[in-house]
Amino acid sequence: MSDIESLKGFYDRYPEEFAAWREVIDVVETTAAEFGFREINTPAVERQKLYEIKSGEELLEQTYSFEDKGGRKVTLTPEQTPTRARLVQQRKDLKTPIKWYDTSKRWRYENVQKGRDREFFQTDIDVFGIESVEADAEVIAVAATIYERLGVADRVEFLINDRTLLDALLDAEGIENTDEVMGVIDDKEKLSREEFLTALRNAGVTHESAERVDELTSIRGPIAEEVDRLRDLAPDDEAAQDAVDRMADLAAALESYGVADVCKLDLSIVRGLAYYTGLVFEAFDSEGELRALFGGGRYDDLVSLFGSQDVPAVGFAFGYSTTRELLKKEGEWPAEELSTDVYVAAVSADVRDEALSFASDLRMEGLVVETDLADRGLGSQFGYADSINADTVLIVGQRDLDNGEVTVRDMDSGDEEQVPIEDLVDEVA
Amino acid sequence: MSDIESLKGFYDRYPEEFAAWREVIDVVETTAAEFGFREINTPAVERQKLYEIKSGEELLEQTYSFEDKGGRKVTLTPEQTPTRARLVQQRKDLKTPIKWYDTSKRWRYENVQKGRDREFFQTDIDVFGIESVEADAEVIAVAATIYERLGVADRVEFLINDRTLLDALLDAEGIENTDEVMGVIDDKEKLSREEFLTALRNAGVTHESAERVDELTSIRGPIAEEVDRLRDLAPDDEAAQDAVDRMADLAAALESYGVADVCKLDLSIVRGLAYYTGLVFEAFDSEGELRALFGGGRYDDLVSLFGSQDVPAVGFAFGYSTTRELLKKEGEWPAEELSTDVYVAAVSADVRDEALSFASDLRMEGLVVETDLADRGLGSQFGYADSINADTVLIVGQRDLDNGEVTVRDMDSGDEEQVPIEDLVDEVA
Repeated sequence: MSDIESLKGFYDRYPEEFAAWREVIDVVETTAAEFGFREINTPAVERQKLYEIKSGEELLEQTYSFEDKGGRKVTLTPEQTPTRARLVQQRKDLKTPIKWYDTSKRWRYENVQKGRDREFFQTDIDVFGIESVEADAEVIAVAATIYERLGVADRVEFLINDRTLLDALLDAEGIENTDEVMGVIDDKEKLSREEFLTALRNAGVTHESAERVDELTSIRGPIAEEVDRLRDLAPDDEAAQDAVDRMADLAAALESYGVADVCKLDLSIVRGLAYYTGLVFEAFDSEGELRALFGGGRYDDLVSLFGSQDVPAVGFAFGYSTTRELLKKEGEWPAEELSTDVYVAAVSADVRDEALSFASDLRMEGLVVETDLADRGLGSQFGYADSINADTVLIVGQRDLDNGEVTVRDMDSGDEEQVPIEDLVDEVA
Repeated sequence: MSDIESLKGFYDRYPEEFAAWREVIDVVETTAAEFGFREINTPAVERQKLYEIKSGEELLEQTYSFEDKGGRKVTLTPEQTPTRARLVQQRKDLKTPIKWYDTSKRWRYENVQKGRDREFFQTDIDVFGIESVEADAEVIAVAATIYERLGVADRVEFLINDRTLLDALLDAEGIENTDEVMGVIDDKEKLSREEFLTALRNAGVTHESAERVDELTSIRGPIAEEVDRLRDLAPDDEAAQDAVDRMADLAAALESYGVADVCKLDLSIVRGLAYYTGLVFEAFDSEGELRALFGGGRYDDLVSLFGSQDVPAVGFAFGYSTTRELLKKEGEWPAEELSTDVYVAAVSADVRDEALSFASDLRMEGLVVETDLADRGLGSQFGYADSINADTVLIVGQRDLDNGEVTVRDMDSGDEEQVPIEDLVDEVA
C-alpha cells in the first residue's frame, strides 16, 4: 500500500475530522462575506512566470513546478497574491473597493514539520483599490472578528505597526539607512538585547540612537495610549507627526469596529522588507505558547508589477494550521463527529418503501436524514443510528402504519411517542 | 501580460460569476448532505502509481504528471475514485454504509473545447460497503433531487440499466461472448441500425438474435412498465428473472424516493466495459440538445484493487460543465451579480466612526454589510451601493444622530424613514 498512500505533508481527511475543519472554514468565510468581501475562484496551476515577478526565481525552489505536456513551465499556486494581482490588472471596470475572499489549497515543497505541510488551506482576504485607514482597519477587524467567533478572542493578540511610522521615527532619530535598520529590527525577536544593539551599531546607528531604537521597538501596548507617547518623541518632525496621526486614526477606527481590545501597537513588527508599504500586523497567541497565527498588511506597490494599473492593496492570508492548534488547546476546535437529524428505521422489509418515502419528506424540510440501505434488522439499524449521532429515530412498522402513525424516538432521552403520519413533518422538522 | 495570463482551460472567476457557481455547488452539496452523505477532503496531488492501478499507464497521458523535487512521480488528481478507494481500504473500522461527498477540482491535460476544460469542479458522491437496490436507488435519488432543486427536473432524464440484467438477457438469448457484445452495444449510439446489426453479426451473433438485441436495446421507457415486458422475454431463465426482479425492486424504490418520473430503463446504456458491475446510469438533457450531463453506477470490484478489503460501491461524479449549459438554456443559471443586505453611508467624515460601528452591529446579525472606506461623498457612496446591489442604505448624518436616529432607505422603492438608533437592528435585520 505504501506506493499509493498519500504523499508526505498531504492529508486524507475523513468525515468526522473534516466536519470540524468545515465548521472553522465556514466561520472564516461567513465573517468575510458579512464584511462584504466577495468570493472569487482562481486556478490551482499557473505559469511559473507569475511567481518570478514577485519572488524571483530562487523562491520557486520551494514550489511544485514542472513542465506540462505542452512544454509550459507551470507551478501549483504556493500563494494567491500574484493571481489576485493579475485579476485586478485584467479588468479596468472593477468598482473600488475591490473586496475578495477565497479559501483554497496551496502547495509548497517544504520540509514537513509541525504546522508546515506541503498541501494546506488558506483564506485570502484583501481590499484592493483603496488606500485609507478605514480599509486597514477593516482588514484587521475581519481578522479579529473571526477569532471572536471562533471563541478565542481572549487568547489572540494583533500586533500592529505601520512601516511608514517606523520609518519616520527612525528618520527623526537621524537614521538614514532606514531599510537596513528595519531589517535588523525584523530580526530582533531572535536576538538578545546585546546582539540587537550590536547589530544596530554594525548598521551604523550611534550608541545613543541604538538605545532609543531598542526602546521604541520594545513598546507593546494599546494603540491609542502608545500613540500619545509617540507624539512627543519627535514633536517637530512633520512626517513623524503625520504617521502618528494616521496611527491614531487607525486606533479610532478599530475602536468603532469593536476590536481595539485585541490590538496592540508594536513597532518591532516589520514582516520582511520587500513587500509591505504601510500597515503590517501579525496575530499571536497572547500567552506566547504558539508560533504566529498569520500576518498581513498593506502592499501598495505590488499590483503594479503585474500590469499597468497602480492599485493599492491591504489584506492577509488566513492560515489554519496554528489556529487549529490554538483552538484545540482552548477546547474550541469543533467536535470531530458526525451529526444527523433523523434516522428512519424500518421494522421489516415490507415497509422499507414507506421508510424511504418518509425520509424523502423530511429531507425536503432541509433535515439530514439517513435510512436503512441493507435490509438490516432493527437492532443493527439502531446501532448505525447511534454511530451517526442521530438526534431522532423514526420507527416505521406495519402495525403503526395501519393506525396511520409512526413511532418517533428521541435518542437523548429515549422517549418514544406515536405520531400521526400527517403531523410527522411538523413534529420532527 | 500573456506570460502570466491563466493557462488555457483554466479560469479566473470574478465574484459575480462565481456567486452563481457557488449557488449551484451549494445545491449539490446540500442535497448530498441531506441524504446523509458526509464531506471528506483529500489531496490534490497523489502518487502516480495510484492511477496506474485502475487505468493503466496509457491513461496517464491525459494527466498532469511530473516528478516532485524529491524525485517522486506524482499526478494532479484527474478523478477522486482511486483516492476514495484508498481511504476505504485504509480503515477497517468504518461503519457501513460509508456515504461520502466532496466537491473539488480535477485536472486533465485534454484538448480544450466546449465543456472540456483542463481544470474543473466535480462533486463525487458514493455509497461504499453496501450492495443493495436501496443503495442504487439512493444514489439515483440524490442525482435526480439535485436537478429538481436546480429547477430543471423536467429537462433531465436518467437512463438506467443494470449490466447484470443485460448480461442475463443476452445469455438467455444464447449469446456467450456477452462482454464483446456489450462492447458493441456501448457503440450503438454512434452506429446506424445496419451498422449495429453488422457489428453484432461480426461478433458472432446470429441474424435472429441480432434483431432481438436491437429490439432490446431500443427500449426506453418507464422502468416499472418495461420491466413487465422484460419478464416475458426469458420466462424460464432463472438468472434473467432474478435480474428483472431486481430492476423491479429498483423501480419501486425510485417510486418511494419520488424520482421515478425522471428515470427510464434503457438497456443500451453500458458505460464502457472495464469498471461497472451492476447498475449503470446516465443523465441526459431530455430534449437531446446537449451532451450527457454525467453518469455513474455500481463498481463492486474496483475498491479491492487498492487493498485487501472487498468493498462494494455505487456512485457518480457530478460534473458542472454541461449542467451549466442546461441551466443557462433554461434560464435557471443563477444571476451573476453581487448581493448585499445593507450599505452604511456616512454623510460626512466626522460620523464615519459611527457608521463603522453601525455596520459592525448589523454584521453581528449575519447581514452582509459594506460601508465607505475612502472618505467619499454621499453621491459616490450611493453609486457604489448601487453597484453592489444593496437592498437597504443606512444614511448616517450628524443631524439625525443628534436626534438619536438614522435614515433607512429602501433601494427598491426609494422610500426613506428615520429610525431610532435603538430600533435599528430590529428594523433592518
